[in-house]
Amino acid sequence: MALDCYFISGSPFAWRALLALSLKGLDFSMTELKVSEAEHKAPEYLALNPHGQVPALKDGDITVYESLAILAYLERKYPDNSPLFGTTDREAALIWQRVMEFESWLVPVMRGIVRPIFFGPLEGHEDAVNENIDKLKAELERYSAWLDGNDFLAGNSISAVDISVYPAVAIMARVLTNVENDLLDKSFLPLIETYPLVSAWMARVEALDGFDAVYPPHWRSQQAAE
Amino acid sequence: MALDCYFISGSPFAWRALLALSLKGLDFSMTELKVSEAEHKAPEYLALNPHGQVPALKDGDITVYESLAILAYLERKYPDNSPLFGTTDREAALIWQRVMEFESWLVPVMRGIVRPIFFGPLEGHEDAVNENIDKLKAELERYSAWLDGNDFLAGNSISAVDISVYPAVAIMARVLTNVENDLLDKSFLPLIETYPLVSAWMARVEALDGFDAVYPPHWRSQQAAE
Repeated sequence: MALDCYFISGSPFAWRALLALSLKGLDFSMTELKVSEAEHKAPEYLALNPHGQVPALKDGDITVYESLAILAYLERKYPDNSPLFGTTDREAALIWQRVMEFESWLVPVMRGIVRPIFFGPLEGHEDAVNENIDKLKAELERYSAWLDGNDFLAGNSISAVDISVYPAVAIMARVLTNVENDLLDKSFLPLIETYPLVSAWMARVEALDGFDAVYPPHWRSQQAAE
Repeated sequence: MALDCYFISGSPFAWRALLALSLKGLDFSMTELKVSEAEHKAPEYLALNPHGQVPALKDGDITVYESLAILAYLERKYPDNSPLFGTTDREAALIWQRVMEFESWLVPVMRGIVRPIFFGPLEGHEDAVNENIDKLKAELERYSAWLDGNDFLAGNSISAVDISVYPAVAIMARVLTNVENDLLDKSFLPLIETYPLVSAWMARVEALDGFDAVYPPHWRSQQAAE
Protein backbone atom coordinates (compact mmCIF):
# COMPACT_ATOMS: atom_id res chain seq x y z
CA MET A 1 0.00 0.00 0.00
CA ALA A 2 1.43 3.34 -0.98
CA LEU A 3 0.21 5.47 1.93
CA ASP A 4 1.36 4.44 5.40
CA CYS A 5 0.89 6.55 8.53
CA TYR A 6 2.94 5.95 11.69
CA PHE A 7 1.05 6.75 14.86
CA ILE A 8 0.90 6.31 18.63
CA SER A 9 -2.53 5.38 19.96
CA GLY A 10 -4.10 8.46 21.54
CA SER A 11 -1.64 11.01 20.15
CA PRO A 12 -3.84 13.95 19.12
CA PHE A 13 -1.45 14.98 16.37
CA ALA A 14 -1.29 11.52 14.86
CA TRP A 15 -5.05 11.22 15.19
CA ARG A 16 -5.45 14.42 13.16
CA ALA A 17 -3.36 13.00 10.32
CA LEU A 18 -5.23 9.68 10.43
CA LEU A 19 -8.57 11.51 10.31
CA ALA A 20 -7.39 13.42 7.24
CA LEU A 21 -6.46 10.20 5.46
CA SER A 22 -9.65 8.46 6.50
CA LEU A 23 -12.10 11.31 5.82
CA LYS A 24 -10.52 11.79 2.41
CA GLY A 25 -11.39 8.15 1.70
CA LEU A 26 -7.79 7.31 0.80
CA ASP A 27 -6.47 3.77 0.79
CA PHE A 28 -3.86 3.77 3.56
CA SER A 29 -2.26 1.57 6.18
CA MET A 30 -1.55 2.44 9.82
CA THR A 31 1.64 1.46 11.61
CA GLU A 32 1.27 1.71 15.38
CA LEU A 33 4.37 2.54 17.41
CA LYS A 34 4.41 1.29 21.00
CA VAL A 35 5.68 3.93 23.43
CA SER A 36 6.18 1.17 26.04
CA GLU A 37 8.82 -0.32 23.73
CA ALA A 38 10.19 3.11 22.69
CA GLU A 39 9.47 2.28 19.07
CA HIS A 40 9.18 6.01 18.30
CA LYS A 41 12.83 6.41 19.37
CA ALA A 42 14.12 3.37 17.48
CA PRO A 43 16.67 3.99 14.71
CA GLU A 44 14.28 2.82 11.98
CA TYR A 45 11.73 5.41 12.99
CA LEU A 46 14.25 8.19 13.65
CA ALA A 47 15.32 7.69 10.03
CA LEU A 48 11.79 8.78 9.06
CA ASN A 49 11.42 11.53 11.67
CA PRO A 50 14.58 12.59 13.50
CA HIS A 51 12.49 14.20 16.24
CA GLY A 52 11.02 10.79 17.17
CA GLN A 53 7.49 12.16 17.16
CA VAL A 54 4.30 11.00 15.50
CA PRO A 55 2.77 11.17 13.01
CA ALA A 56 4.92 10.49 9.99
CA LEU A 57 3.49 9.65 6.60
CA LYS A 58 5.05 7.64 3.81
CA ASP A 59 3.51 8.12 0.39
CA GLY A 60 5.57 6.02 -1.97
CA ASP A 61 9.03 7.54 -1.78
CA ILE A 62 7.86 10.80 -0.18
CA THR A 63 8.04 11.07 3.62
CA VAL A 64 6.36 13.89 5.57
CA TYR A 65 6.24 14.52 9.29
CA GLU A 66 4.61 17.30 11.37
CA SER A 67 0.88 16.66 11.35
CA LEU A 68 -0.16 19.96 9.82
CA ALA A 69 2.39 19.49 7.05
CA ILE A 70 0.77 16.11 6.40
CA LEU A 71 -2.65 17.76 6.11
CA ALA A 72 -1.34 20.42 3.72
CA TYR A 73 0.43 17.77 1.66
CA LEU A 74 -2.63 15.52 1.43
CA GLU A 75 -4.82 18.46 0.46
CA ARG A 76 -2.42 19.40 -2.30
CA LYS A 77 -1.98 15.87 -3.66
CA TYR A 78 -5.59 14.74 -3.23
CA PRO A 79 -7.59 17.97 -3.55
CA ASP A 80 -10.78 16.36 -4.82
CA ASN A 81 -11.16 13.88 -1.94
CA SER A 82 -13.28 15.72 0.67
CA PRO A 83 -11.47 19.07 0.71
CA LEU A 84 -10.26 19.91 4.22
CA PHE A 85 -9.24 23.51 3.49
CA GLY A 86 -12.41 24.66 1.74
CA THR A 87 -13.23 25.18 -1.90
CA THR A 88 -12.95 28.98 -2.13
CA ASP A 89 -10.28 31.51 -1.16
CA ARG A 90 -12.57 32.88 1.53
CA GLU A 91 -13.16 29.44 3.06
CA ALA A 92 -9.45 28.63 2.91
CA ALA A 93 -8.63 31.87 4.73
CA LEU A 94 -11.04 31.11 7.58
CA ILE A 95 -10.00 27.47 7.89
CA TRP A 96 -6.27 28.22 7.95
CA GLN A 97 -6.83 31.03 10.43
CA ARG A 98 -8.78 28.79 12.79
CA VAL A 99 -6.32 25.91 12.44
CA MET A 100 -3.53 28.28 13.44
CA GLU A 101 -5.64 29.65 16.31
CA PHE A 102 -5.93 26.04 17.48
CA GLU A 103 -2.13 25.73 17.31
CA SER A 104 -1.57 29.00 19.13
CA TRP A 105 -4.20 28.75 21.84
CA LEU A 106 -5.47 25.20 22.39
CA VAL A 107 -2.27 23.18 21.91
CA PRO A 108 -0.45 24.85 24.85
CA VAL A 109 -3.56 24.36 27.02
CA MET A 110 -3.72 20.69 26.08
CA ARG A 111 -0.06 20.24 27.00
CA GLY A 112 -0.62 22.03 30.30
CA ILE A 113 -3.45 19.66 31.19
CA VAL A 114 -2.40 16.32 29.75
CA ARG A 115 1.32 16.27 30.55
CA PRO A 116 1.11 16.70 34.34
CA ILE A 117 -1.62 14.06 34.50
CA PHE A 118 0.21 11.54 32.31
CA PHE A 119 3.81 12.24 33.22
CA GLY A 120 3.61 14.21 36.47
CA PRO A 121 4.21 15.92 38.71
CA LEU A 122 0.51 16.47 39.35
CA GLU A 123 0.18 16.59 43.13
CA GLY A 124 0.97 20.09 44.34
CA HIS A 125 0.60 21.41 40.77
CA GLU A 126 -3.18 21.27 40.52
CA ASP A 127 -3.45 25.08 40.40
CA ALA A 128 -1.39 25.22 37.21
CA VAL A 129 -3.59 22.56 35.62
CA ASN A 130 -6.71 24.44 36.73
CA GLU A 131 -5.38 27.61 35.11
CA ASN A 132 -5.21 25.68 31.87
CA ILE A 133 -8.70 24.32 32.45
CA ASP A 134 -9.88 27.93 32.69
CA LYS A 135 -8.22 28.61 29.34
CA LEU A 136 -9.82 25.48 27.92
CA LYS A 137 -13.22 26.79 28.98
CA ALA A 138 -12.51 30.05 27.16
CA GLU A 139 -11.67 28.08 24.02
CA LEU A 140 -14.83 25.98 24.38
CA GLU A 141 -16.78 29.25 24.56
CA ARG A 142 -15.06 30.39 21.39
CA TYR A 143 -15.90 27.11 19.65
CA SER A 144 -19.50 27.36 20.83
CA ALA A 145 -19.70 30.74 19.11
CA TRP A 146 -18.24 29.29 15.92
CA LEU A 147 -20.78 26.45 16.06
CA ASP A 148 -23.76 28.73 16.61
CA GLY A 149 -25.67 28.17 13.37
CA ASN A 150 -22.99 25.92 11.87
CA ASP A 151 -22.59 22.15 11.84
CA PHE A 152 -18.79 22.33 11.95
CA LEU A 153 -16.11 24.69 13.25
CA ALA A 154 -15.62 26.62 10.02
CA GLY A 155 -19.02 26.35 8.38
CA ASN A 156 -21.27 23.49 7.40
CA SER A 157 -18.60 21.11 6.07
CA ILE A 158 -15.94 19.17 7.91
CA SER A 159 -12.56 20.88 7.67
CA ALA A 160 -9.03 20.81 8.99
CA VAL A 161 -10.29 22.83 11.97
CA ASP A 162 -12.59 20.04 13.14
CA ILE A 163 -10.02 17.28 12.78
CA SER A 164 -7.52 19.43 14.69
CA VAL A 165 -9.79 20.40 17.57
CA TYR A 166 -11.71 17.13 18.00
CA PRO A 167 -8.79 14.92 19.12
CA ALA A 168 -7.53 17.61 21.50
CA VAL A 169 -10.90 18.14 23.19
CA ALA A 170 -11.61 14.40 23.31
CA ILE A 171 -8.28 13.73 24.99
CA MET A 172 -8.65 16.49 27.57
CA ALA A 173 -12.20 15.41 28.43
CA ARG A 174 -11.03 11.79 28.74
CA VAL A 175 -8.00 12.35 30.96
CA LEU A 176 -9.87 14.79 33.22
CA THR A 177 -12.79 12.39 33.54
CA ASN A 178 -10.49 9.50 34.42
CA VAL A 179 -7.95 11.16 36.71
CA GLU A 180 -8.62 10.80 40.42
CA ASN A 181 -7.75 14.14 42.02
CA ASP A 182 -10.27 16.19 43.95
CA LEU A 183 -8.34 19.44 43.51
CA LEU A 184 -8.84 19.54 39.75
CA ASP A 185 -11.72 21.57 38.39
CA LYS A 186 -14.05 19.13 36.65
CA SER A 187 -17.11 21.34 36.97
CA PHE A 188 -17.37 21.70 33.19
CA LEU A 189 -17.75 17.95 32.63
CA PRO A 190 -19.67 16.35 31.06
CA LEU A 191 -19.46 18.70 28.08
CA ILE A 192 -23.02 17.86 27.05
CA GLU A 193 -24.31 19.84 30.02
CA THR A 194 -22.01 22.85 29.88
CA TYR A 195 -21.19 23.15 26.19
CA PRO A 196 -24.10 21.54 24.32
CA LEU A 197 -23.06 23.00 20.97
CA VAL A 198 -19.61 21.44 21.41
CA SER A 199 -20.93 18.04 22.41
CA ALA A 200 -23.43 18.02 19.53
CA TRP A 201 -20.56 18.87 17.17
CA MET A 202 -18.46 16.06 18.64
CA ALA A 203 -21.30 13.61 17.98
CA ARG A 204 -21.46 14.93 14.41
CA VAL A 205 -17.73 14.29 13.92
CA GLU A 206 -18.06 10.82 15.45
CA ALA A 207 -20.84 9.97 12.98
CA LEU A 208 -18.70 10.73 9.93
CA ASP A 209 -17.71 7.90 7.60
CA GLY A 210 -14.07 7.26 8.34
CA PHE A 211 -14.15 8.26 12.01
CA ASP A 212 -14.33 4.74 13.48
CA ALA A 213 -11.48 3.40 11.35
CA VAL A 214 -8.92 5.60 13.06
CA TYR A 215 -10.25 5.69 16.62
CA PRO A 216 -7.36 5.21 19.09
CA PRO A 217 -7.06 1.41 19.40
CA HIS A 218 -6.29 1.36 23.12
CA TRP A 219 -9.26 3.60 23.92
CA ARG A 220 -11.51 1.12 22.14
CA SER A 221 -10.06 -1.88 23.97
CA GLN A 222 -10.38 -0.09 27.34
CA GLN A 223 -14.01 0.76 26.60
CA ALA A 224 -14.69 -2.87 25.63
CA ALA A 225 -13.20 -3.99 28.95
CA GLU A 226 -15.32 -1.63 31.05
CA MET B 1 -5.52 49.40 -2.61
CA ALA B 2 -7.11 46.02 -2.09
CA LEU B 3 -4.39 44.32 -0.05
CA ASP B 4 -3.50 45.93 3.28
CA CYS B 5 -1.30 44.34 5.92
CA TYR B 6 -1.30 45.51 9.55
CA PHE B 7 2.06 45.13 11.24
CA ILE B 8 4.22 46.15 14.20
CA SER B 9 7.77 47.11 13.27
CA GLY B 10 10.09 44.25 14.18
CA SER B 11 7.40 41.64 14.80
CA PRO B 12 8.81 38.46 13.21
CA PHE B 13 5.36 37.12 12.41
CA ALA B 14 4.24 40.31 10.72
CA TRP B 15 7.55 40.47 8.86
CA ARG B 16 6.92 36.99 7.49
CA ALA B 17 3.54 38.05 6.08
CA LEU B 18 5.01 41.25 4.63
CA LEU B 19 7.81 39.27 3.00
CA ALA B 20 5.25 36.95 1.41
CA LEU B 21 3.34 39.89 -0.05
CA SER B 22 6.50 41.63 -1.21
CA LEU B 23 8.29 38.59 -2.66
CA LYS B 24 5.13 37.65 -4.53
CA GLY B 25 5.29 41.09 -6.14
CA LEU B 26 1.75 41.95 -5.06
CA ASP B 27 0.47 45.50 -4.90
CA PHE B 28 -0.17 46.06 -1.19
CA SER B 29 -0.19 48.72 1.49
CA MET B 30 1.25 48.47 5.00
CA THR B 31 -0.46 49.86 8.07
CA GLU B 32 1.91 50.20 11.01
CA LEU B 33 0.48 49.85 14.51
CA LYS B 34 2.35 51.63 17.30
CA VAL B 35 2.75 49.49 20.40
CA SER B 36 3.62 52.63 22.37
CA GLU B 37 0.09 53.86 21.69
CA ALA B 38 -1.46 50.39 22.12
CA GLU B 39 -2.89 50.61 18.64
CA HIS B 40 -2.90 46.80 18.42
CA LYS B 41 -5.34 46.73 21.35
CA ALA B 42 -7.59 49.50 20.04
CA PRO B 43 -11.21 48.58 19.26
CA GLU B 44 -10.77 49.19 15.54
CA TYR B 45 -7.95 46.66 15.37
CA LEU B 46 -9.57 44.15 17.72
CA ALA B 47 -12.47 44.12 15.25
CA LEU B 48 -9.99 42.74 12.70
CA ASN B 49 -8.13 40.41 15.06
CA PRO B 50 -9.73 39.81 18.46
CA HIS B 51 -6.38 38.54 19.81
CA GLY B 52 -4.81 41.97 19.23
CA GLN B 53 -1.80 40.46 17.52
CA VAL B 54 -0.12 41.20 14.23
CA PRO B 55 -0.19 40.57 11.36
CA ALA B 56 -3.68 40.86 9.96
CA LEU B 57 -4.39 41.09 6.25
CA LYS B 58 -7.30 42.70 4.49
CA ASP B 59 -7.86 41.62 0.93
CA GLY B 60 -10.98 43.42 -0.22
CA ASP B 61 -13.70 42.12 2.07
CA ILE B 62 -11.69 39.10 3.25
CA THR B 63 -9.74 39.44 6.51
CA VAL B 64 -7.14 36.89 7.65
CA TYR B 65 -4.97 36.83 10.74
CA GLU B 66 -2.34 34.34 11.99
CA SER B 67 0.75 34.79 9.82
CA LEU B 68 0.93 31.24 8.51
CA ALA B 69 -2.75 31.40 7.57
CA ILE B 70 -1.92 34.56 5.62
CA LEU B 71 0.86 32.71 3.77
CA ALA B 72 -1.41 29.78 2.94
CA TYR B 73 -4.14 32.16 1.79
CA LEU B 74 -1.82 34.21 -0.40
CA GLU B 75 -0.39 31.04 -1.94
CA ARG B 76 -3.86 29.80 -2.77
CA LYS B 77 -5.13 33.08 -4.17
CA TYR B 78 -1.94 34.10 -5.99
CA PRO B 79 -0.30 30.76 -6.84
CA ASP B 80 1.61 32.00 -9.87
CA ASN B 81 3.38 34.89 -8.10
CA SER B 82 6.67 33.38 -6.84
CA PRO B 83 5.33 30.17 -5.29
CA LEU B 84 6.28 29.95 -1.61
CA PHE B 85 5.22 26.33 -1.10
CA GLY B 86 6.96 24.77 -4.08
CA THR B 87 5.68 23.65 -7.43
CA THR B 88 5.49 19.88 -6.88
CA ASP B 89 3.91 17.66 -4.23
CA ARG B 90 7.36 16.63 -3.06
CA GLU B 91 8.53 20.23 -2.65
CA ALA B 92 5.31 21.18 -0.89
CA ALA B 93 5.78 18.30 1.57
CA LEU B 94 9.30 19.39 2.47
CA ILE B 95 8.43 23.07 2.73
CA TRP B 96 5.40 22.52 4.93
CA GLN B 97 7.36 20.11 7.10
CA ARG B 98 10.17 22.60 7.62
CA VAL B 99 7.79 25.51 8.23
CA MET B 100 6.12 23.45 10.95
CA GLU B 101 9.52 22.46 12.37
CA PHE B 102 10.21 26.19 12.61
CA GLU B 103 6.94 26.65 14.50
CA SER B 104 7.63 23.71 16.81
CA TRP B 105 11.30 24.28 17.55
CA LEU B 106 12.49 27.79 16.77
CA VAL B 107 9.47 29.87 17.81
CA PRO B 108 9.63 28.77 21.49
CA VAL B 109 13.39 29.44 21.47
CA MET B 110 12.83 32.91 20.04
CA ARG B 111 10.26 33.67 22.74
CA GLY B 112 12.64 32.39 25.42
CA ILE B 113 15.36 34.74 24.23
CA VAL B 114 13.54 37.86 23.09
CA ARG B 115 10.86 38.21 25.79
CA PRO B 116 13.15 38.37 28.85
CA ILE B 117 15.39 40.88 27.07
CA PHE B 118 12.54 43.11 25.89
CA PHE B 119 10.06 42.73 28.72
CA GLY B 120 12.12 41.26 31.57
CA PRO B 121 12.91 39.94 34.02
CA LEU B 122 16.39 39.32 32.61
CA GLU B 123 18.73 39.80 35.56
CA GLY B 124 18.89 36.58 37.51
CA HIS B 125 17.31 34.70 34.61
CA GLU B 126 20.33 34.61 32.30
CA ASP B 127 20.65 30.83 32.65
CA ALA B 128 17.20 30.29 31.18
CA VAL B 129 18.05 32.56 28.26
CA ASN B 130 21.35 30.74 27.76
CA GLU B 131 19.49 27.41 27.64
CA ASN B 132 17.49 28.84 24.78
CA ILE B 133 20.67 30.10 23.13
CA ASP B 134 21.94 26.50 23.24
CA LYS B 135 18.76 25.40 21.50
CA LEU B 136 19.18 28.19 18.98
CA LYS B 137 22.65 26.90 18.18
CA ALA B 138 21.20 23.42 17.58
CA GLU B 139 18.70 24.93 15.15
CA LEU B 140 21.44 26.91 13.40
CA GLU B 141 23.32 23.61 12.98
CA ARG B 142 20.19 22.08 11.49
CA TYR B 143 19.78 25.01 9.10
CA SER B 144 23.45 24.77 8.13
CA ALA B 145 22.83 21.15 7.14
CA TRP B 146 19.79 22.16 5.08
CA LEU B 147 21.88 24.86 3.38
CA ASP B 148 24.76 22.54 2.56
CA GLY B 149 24.57 22.50 -1.25
CA ASN B 150 21.39 24.62 -1.36
CA ASP B 151 20.85 28.35 -1.75
CA PHE B 152 17.76 28.38 0.44
CA LEU B 153 16.35 26.38 3.34
CA ALA B 154 14.27 23.99 1.26
CA GLY B 155 16.19 23.83 -2.00
CA ASN B 156 17.39 26.40 -4.46
CA SER B 157 14.34 28.66 -4.47
CA ILE B 158 13.04 30.98 -1.82
CA SER B 159 10.15 29.44 0.10
CA ALA B 160 7.91 29.87 3.12
CA VAL B 161 10.70 28.28 5.18
CA ASP B 162 13.12 31.11 4.45
CA ILE B 163 10.65 33.89 5.13
CA SER B 164 9.71 32.20 8.41
CA VAL B 165 13.23 31.57 9.67
CA TYR B 166 14.91 34.77 8.47
CA PRO B 167 13.00 37.28 10.64
CA ALA B 168 13.38 35.06 13.71
CA VAL B 169 17.13 34.64 13.33
CA ALA B 170 17.61 38.31 12.46
CA ILE B 171 15.72 39.41 15.56
CA MET B 172 17.58 37.07 17.91
CA ALA B 173 20.96 38.10 16.51
CA ARG B 174 19.98 41.76 16.84
CA VAL B 175 18.70 41.69 20.41
CA LEU B 176 21.61 39.57 21.61
CA THR B 177 24.11 41.84 19.91
CA ASN B 178 22.56 44.94 21.45
CA VAL B 179 21.77 43.77 24.97
CA GLU B 180 24.34 44.67 27.60
CA ASN B 181 24.63 41.67 29.90
CA ASP B 182 27.90 39.83 30.45
CA LEU B 183 26.20 36.66 31.64
CA LEU B 184 24.54 35.95 28.29
CA ASP B 185 26.31 33.58 25.91
CA LYS B 186 27.17 35.61 22.83
CA SER B 187 30.01 33.35 21.75
CA PHE B 188 28.17 32.39 18.56
CA LEU B 189 28.01 35.98 17.33
CA PRO B 190 28.67 37.23 14.73
CA LEU B 191 26.97 34.45 12.75
CA ILE B 192 29.36 34.96 9.84
CA GLU B 193 32.15 33.41 11.90
CA THR B 194 30.31 30.51 13.51
CA TYR B 195 27.60 29.68 10.96
CA PRO B 196 28.93 30.84 7.59
CA LEU B 197 26.28 28.92 5.62
CA VAL B 198 23.58 30.69 7.62
CA SER B 199 25.08 34.14 7.19
CA ALA B 200 25.60 33.59 3.45
CA TRP B 201 21.95 32.52 3.22
CA MET B 202 20.87 35.63 5.14
CA ALA B 203 22.76 37.79 2.66
CA ARG B 204 20.99 35.93 -0.16
CA VAL B 205 17.58 36.67 1.38
CA GLU B 206 18.53 40.32 1.91
CA ALA B 207 19.46 40.64 -1.78
CA LEU B 208 16.04 39.51 -3.00
CA ASP B 209 13.81 41.96 -4.81
CA GLY B 210 11.13 42.88 -2.31
CA PHE B 211 13.27 42.48 0.82
CA ASP B 212 14.04 46.17 1.36
CA ALA B 213 10.44 47.30 0.96
CA VAL B 214 9.34 45.50 4.12
CA TYR B 215 12.42 45.92 6.34
CA PRO B 216 11.33 46.93 9.87
CA PRO B 217 11.08 50.73 9.69
CA HIS B 218 12.47 51.40 13.17
CA TRP B 219 15.50 49.18 12.54
CA ARG B 220 16.26 51.24 9.47
CA SER B 221 15.90 54.53 11.29
CA GLN B 222 18.11 53.30 14.15
CA GLN B 223 20.78 52.19 11.67
CA ALA B 224 20.61 55.57 9.94
CA ALA B 225 21.13 57.27 13.30
CA GLU B 226 24.18 55.18 14.22
